[in-house]
Amino acid sequence: MQFGIFGSAQAGSLHLGPETGQGFRDYLDHAIEAEALGFHASFLVEHHFTGWNQVSATLMLQTALAMRTTKLRLGTAVIVLPWHNPVLLAEQAATLDQISGGRLDFGIGRGYRHNEFAGFCIPQDEATPRFEESVEVMIRSWTSRARFSHRGRFWQFDEIVVEPPPLQQPHPPLWVAAGSDASIRRAAERGFNLILDQYASPEQHGQRIALYRSVREAKGLGFHPMQVAVARQVHVADSRAEAEAELEKQARWTRRTVEVSRTPGGAIGGSHVLSYAATAAGTEANACFGTADEVCERLIALRAAGVEYVLLTPFSGPEQLRRFAREVMPAFNGTTAEREIRTSQPAPA
Amino acid sequence: MQFGIFGSAQAGSLHLGPETGQGFRDYLDHAIEAEALGFHASFLVEHHFTGWNQVSATLMLQTALAMRTTKLRLGTAVIVLPWHNPVLLAEQAATLDQISGGRLDFGIGRGYRHNEFAGFCIPQDEATPRFEESVEVMIRSWTSRARFSHRGRFWQFDEIVVEPPPLQQPHPPLWVAAGSDASIRRAAERGFNLILDQYASPEQHGQRIALYRSVREAKGLGFHPMQVAVARQVHVADSRAEAEAELEKQARWTRRTVEVSRTPGGAIGGSHVLSYAATAAGTEANACFGTADEVCERLIALRAAGVEYVLLTPFSGPEQLRRFAREVMPAFNGTTAEREIRTSQPAPA
Repeated sequence: MQFGIFGSAQAGSLHLGPETGQGFRDYLDHAIEAEALGFHASFLVEHHFTGWNQVSATLMLQTALAMRTTKLRLGTAVIVLPWHNPVLLAEQAATLDQISGGRLDFGIGRGYRHNEFAGFCIPQDEATPRFEESVEVMIRSWTSRARFSHRGRFWQFDEIVVEPPPLQQPHPPLWVAAGSDASIRRAAERGFNLILDQYASPEQHGQRIALYRSVREAKGLGFHPMQVAVARQVHVADSRAEAEAELEKQARWTRRTVEVSRTPGGAIGGSHVLSYAATAAGTEANACFGTADEVCERLIALRAAGVEYVLLTPFSGPEQLRRFAREVMPAFNGTTAEREIRTSQPAPA
Repeated sequence: MQFGIFGSAQAGSLHLGPETGQGFRDYLDHAIEAEALGFHASFLVEHHFTGWNQVSATLMLQTALAMRTTKLRLGTAVIVLPWHNPVLLAEQAATLDQISGGRLDFGIGRGYRHNEFAGFCIPQDEATPRFEESVEVMIRSWTSRARFSHRGRFWQFDEIVVEPPPLQQPHPPLWVAAGSDASIRRAAERGFNLILDQYASPEQHGQRIALYRSVREAKGLGFHPMQVAVARQVHVADSRAEAEAELEKQARWTRRTVEVSRTPGGAIGGSHVLSYAATAAGTEANACFGTADEVCERLIALRAAGVEYVLLTPFSGPEQLRRFAREVMPAFNGTTAEREIRTSQPAPA
């Protein structure tokens, strides 16, 4: 089993005021230490307009991280395509891929937060067509070394060649968050890697992975367990009481995210926090909060369901990172690391 | 007198093929060494669709540079505003400013290359209104900690607060390239710092600086010579013959830029390469190519005209960087460094 971290920094820190950048530097320091502790990747969110200084320029922070690490995979979870010019984004992703020696894991999504769609003045019902058009333009930007033109619904480009190309060929692995059968099937058909949410049970994830695998194999795309990352909230506690207290603290943070994301009167769907927040404790039921033994049991249940790659989120600081590495990680080493990891991607269309 | 470097990397290198990222890493290595050699800043271009792997994601490379330097000012020369969503760009610039401890010198422009306007499908006559709208949105994004909405000709945002804010207050210094009296006057009135081109003579630059200074002072904005950077092509040679050979090599590269930039049948204007390329040797007449003594003479002429900050471009490698630092720089130390550098910015409108 392999572990990554799923980061969500804020520019400020509680002790130094909101605008010092210390929170960003803390994220970098933790991720650098994570590499040394044996973590495989650091995935970082993208968010806007929260009022609490979340990471908005995700690829910039991951570029900073690239300069202080050598092996760590640099993930995004996820860049929301409807906000971005797809050519500029392809250039930024390729630049990070070049600078990092091919370590970008490019997680992409449609967006789900109401306040972000409203802020950018983009109708939420354009999320899917914008996502699709951007994927098409980005893949063409990365893979065409001849000039091309694009006439789309949202974007037009004329006789361009996009530079630099990415280092990973034909392009960095694309990761998508998916939960429904239809979205998992579609991700598998396109050769996208899969990010499964931090809220569903091991059984649900097991069914999802089985579906994903079967569709990939039917398409001749092959399957490797490292193509599926399951997010999981983790806290290694001294006691059950400490774990419960931390879980309540976690629940308060989750509610803040829910509040800023909700569409007034809107329907709930997708695999993100909103779809679980509708149920009491739905966002905490499967969190890996407990003593080291309890956390191990939860991870064993995930492994039994076919999960071999877990993204841990959020750490309440470097101490938790070290504690997980010391008390939990050793029990899971070696089941995947020795195998060759194929990040098989379909050839460009 | 202070010196910076004006960088233009390419993703490839001549020896390793075009797509290894080595050229980007070389840029970083040279700029890191420049800091150690006493250079004040590294300004980096933004370009797209050239076919020769120029820097397209400028702020990403400068973020990488931020992680390996501590004092060097991190400049852009220039980010072309018409290509960018102004809110995303404000976030990226602020993130770099936070990560670097407030070292961003944010050079911005309208664009001048025909192939870039064509590639992005943006009419060239929208360059100025797009620039103006983006400046307005960016400054508001950086300075408003209350939510605001924007309804413009090109961009709409609704009830946003842009995060993170920059570390430099009220925002990073804005630099613009200007050449005509009207554009210099406008830059001075707005408190923008000034980048003067690499082609004009010391006398021309002297007149420009005098105008810029008088308008700033009349507006009560104050003036400091470090608010004006003059770009200059430099090569320190062993002999006049070597200098002439290097200048001819330089002229060939310049012609390539001219060819990719020219609007078919279009008028020539502005302070960029195209306005000087119309004259025979117009882009080489004032280059600082020569023996160390000859280069010093050219810099003395600039200093006599009121120039105290020179951005050197391009270096043909780290050896030239070291040679300039060893043979030329010592003659110019100390005239500005001891003074306090005020990066006075107007209060937000």
